[in-house]
Amino acid sequence: MLPFSVLQHAQQDSINFRNSGMGIMEISHRSQAFMSLCDEIRLHIRQLLNIPDNYTILFLQGGASSQFFMVPMNLLAPEERATYLNTGIWSQKAIKEAHIFGKIDIGFSSEKENFNRVPQPEEFTVTEGAQYLYYTSNNTIFGTQYHYTPETEAPLVCDMSSDIFSKTIDIEKYALIFAGAQKNMGTAGVILVIIREDLLNKAAENLPTMLKYRTHAEKDSLFNTPPTFSIYIMGKMLEWIKEQGGIPAIYQQNKEKAALLYQTIDNSSGYYRGHAEKGCRSQMNISFTLPSPSLEEKFLQQAQAAGLNGLKGHRLLGGCRASIYNAFPKEGVEKLTLFMQQFQQENPA
Amino acid sequence: MLPFSVLQHAQQDSINFRNSGMGIMEISHRSQAFMSLCDEIRLHIRQLLNIPDNYTILFLQGGASSQFFMVPMNLLAPEERATYLNTGIWSQKAIKEAHIFGKIDIGFSSEKENFNRVPQPEEFTVTEGAQYLYYTSNNTIFGTQYHYTPETEAPLVCDMSSDIFSKTIDIEKYALIFAGAQKNMGTAGVILVIIREDLLNKAAENLPTMLKYRTHAEKDSLFNTPPTFSIYIMGKMLEWIKEQGGIPAIYQQNKEKAALLYQTIDNSSGYYRGHAEKGCRSQMNISFTLPSPSLEEKFLQQAQAAGLNGLKGHRLLGGCRASIYNAFPKEGVEKLTLFMQQFQQENPA
Repeated sequence: MLPFSVLQHAQQDSINFRNSGMGIMEISHRSQAFMSLCDEIRLHIRQLLNIPDNYTILFLQGGASSQFFMVPMNLLAPEERATYLNTGIWSQKAIKEAHIFGKIDIGFSSEKENFNRVPQPEEFTVTEGAQYLYYTSNNTIFGTQYHYTPETEAPLVCDMSSDIFSKTIDIEKYALIFAGAQKNMGTAGVILVIIREDLLNKAAENLPTMLKYRTHAEKDSLFNTPPTFSIYIMGKMLEWIKEQGGIPAIYQQNKEKAALLYQTIDNSSGYYRGHAEKGCRSQMNISFTLPSPSLEEKFLQQAQAAGLNGLKGHRLLGGCRASIYNAFPKEGVEKLTLFMQQFQQENPA
Repeated sequence: MLPFSVLQHAQQDSINFRNSGMGIMEISHRSQAFMSLCDEIRLHIRQLLNIPDNYTILFLQGGASSQFFMVPMNLLAPEERATYLNTGIWSQKAIKEAHIFGKIDIGFSSEKENFNRVPQPEEFTVTEGAQYLYYTSNNTIFGTQYHYTPETEAPLVCDMSSDIFSKTIDIEKYALIFAGAQKNMGTAGVILVIIREDLLNKAAENLPTMLKYRTHAEKDSLFNTPPTFSIYIMGKMLEWIKEQGGIPAIYQQNKEKAALLYQTIDNSSGYYRGHAEKGCRSQMNISFTLPSPSLEEKFLQQAQAAGLNGLKGHRLLGGCRASIYNAFPKEGVEKLTLFMQQFQQENPA
């Protein structure tokens, strides 16, 4: 979901972008107008996340899934080790790809508990000499989220696809952050990579040119034609975040939105049950069940009829899930919680 | 450049796509509306290019540049050979990546003639046992184009990024065709790959999941979140091509557009000089020079003042270049040729 103002900008700029006489979908990525746009977006990102100069900001393609292999391909040699924290399907996919490139240790796994939690701050281990520690900050399907930054001496790599720009982060604790755009910062087609510059040169020379981070760093992400429109939309989303008051204001909104939903769950006398352990509940995805599959089905049907779409849980977990990313309005959450309370009254367990 | 009707559709659908209540930038790639759209677009492609059932149509990310390594990564083992025809910068980039994966033979090169031509039909050699023959059908910088399909027993792989959907092709002569969207079929962010199904299984098992063609074939290009908006625009461009009368009508338009420009060059008594040899002139990109660099500079300045933008040649070749892809209107070419004639009269050599 995108803010309406972003869609309105896109409408206008699809015909005539900055008086160029061309729409944003038509403009050359080598034009001054587009290169200026990229500079502005990088500045927005730098300001919003307070990123120091020794980090490079890249706009890549291939979806966040392509980072599952690009991270180890660039940072891990065959005899080297990396530690992964296994907290859900996205971590699992990343671990699978990493095994192709080096020796992988699992520093924590909640797989046996069906991924209902992330580790406590002291609960994971990092193998000595690990080239990096990898984790997924928010687990969309299981509705869990880290509410701290893992402390480690190893370079920290994080998949922030589903909670970037939703809360303040201490960027200097990270070596590499990546995120697909379609959750919190726009529409599909572009990945944001923030990489500490000393990692750029770690990749072997004989990798495909397009798969080395340094190729894109050296060319300001214009080595080849970038996904111009998706980058443009990201820029508009970042401007919208600034208009809201920046990350602290967005965080406060997200906190209030999630609190409304979790209160509804917690006050339902067990009618609604959250999947995640309380200490690691996600502010982006709230996964919950009803007393029976038939009630869940009825809930989803009536919700859809009431204009509350997309509440079906992921097939790996079942149940229901509310995804309330940055652009999802508080009114929508209020409407959902009222609906939940009413449904419970009308459909006792 | 995109047809105005495509931009209008995009404007409307960015707010409410097919009465879903969501814009095309917001819609889930797992929604029925989006999956139906993908089916429709595949059908458009199949119909426009007359593609038989034993070919799979994929929508990938990463830009056509990512195909430079994905082709050999999927089709070539370290001890195997492939033959490449070297006709410009895009072939050179493909050859560079291919060397990482197998043994590469150059079956033809026009590098010494500054890439002013492609081979004659009998002029290239294919190494016996080659896993494939690779060529670039249109060379954007040097303005050359194959006007025939190379005959070979090896599977034929073609980069059609800059002339796909501009002319009829005999698809059964090809094993794999790829093309970035931004020249003839929309906006940047998506690559079209058409692959004969027997090639899907050639890739080694231990490649990154996202880099195997068969991963995407097995999931109808929905293995991960695809670039939804760029795919949508591609669909609108294909509908526009159908509205024009399909490929034969587009070909006729392109032929007339290019003929106007080449006639202007040929009738200029050597004032304008085309870079490409006559037999392999491109119908998409016309690269030409003027009698002196100072005249070229004046030409470009006055052209821009007259609303004729983007005529500066690529830095690798210099001079001037007119790119007249499918969506570029004939009126624009007429305006340019009149300007060229007038400029010549007013600025004798």
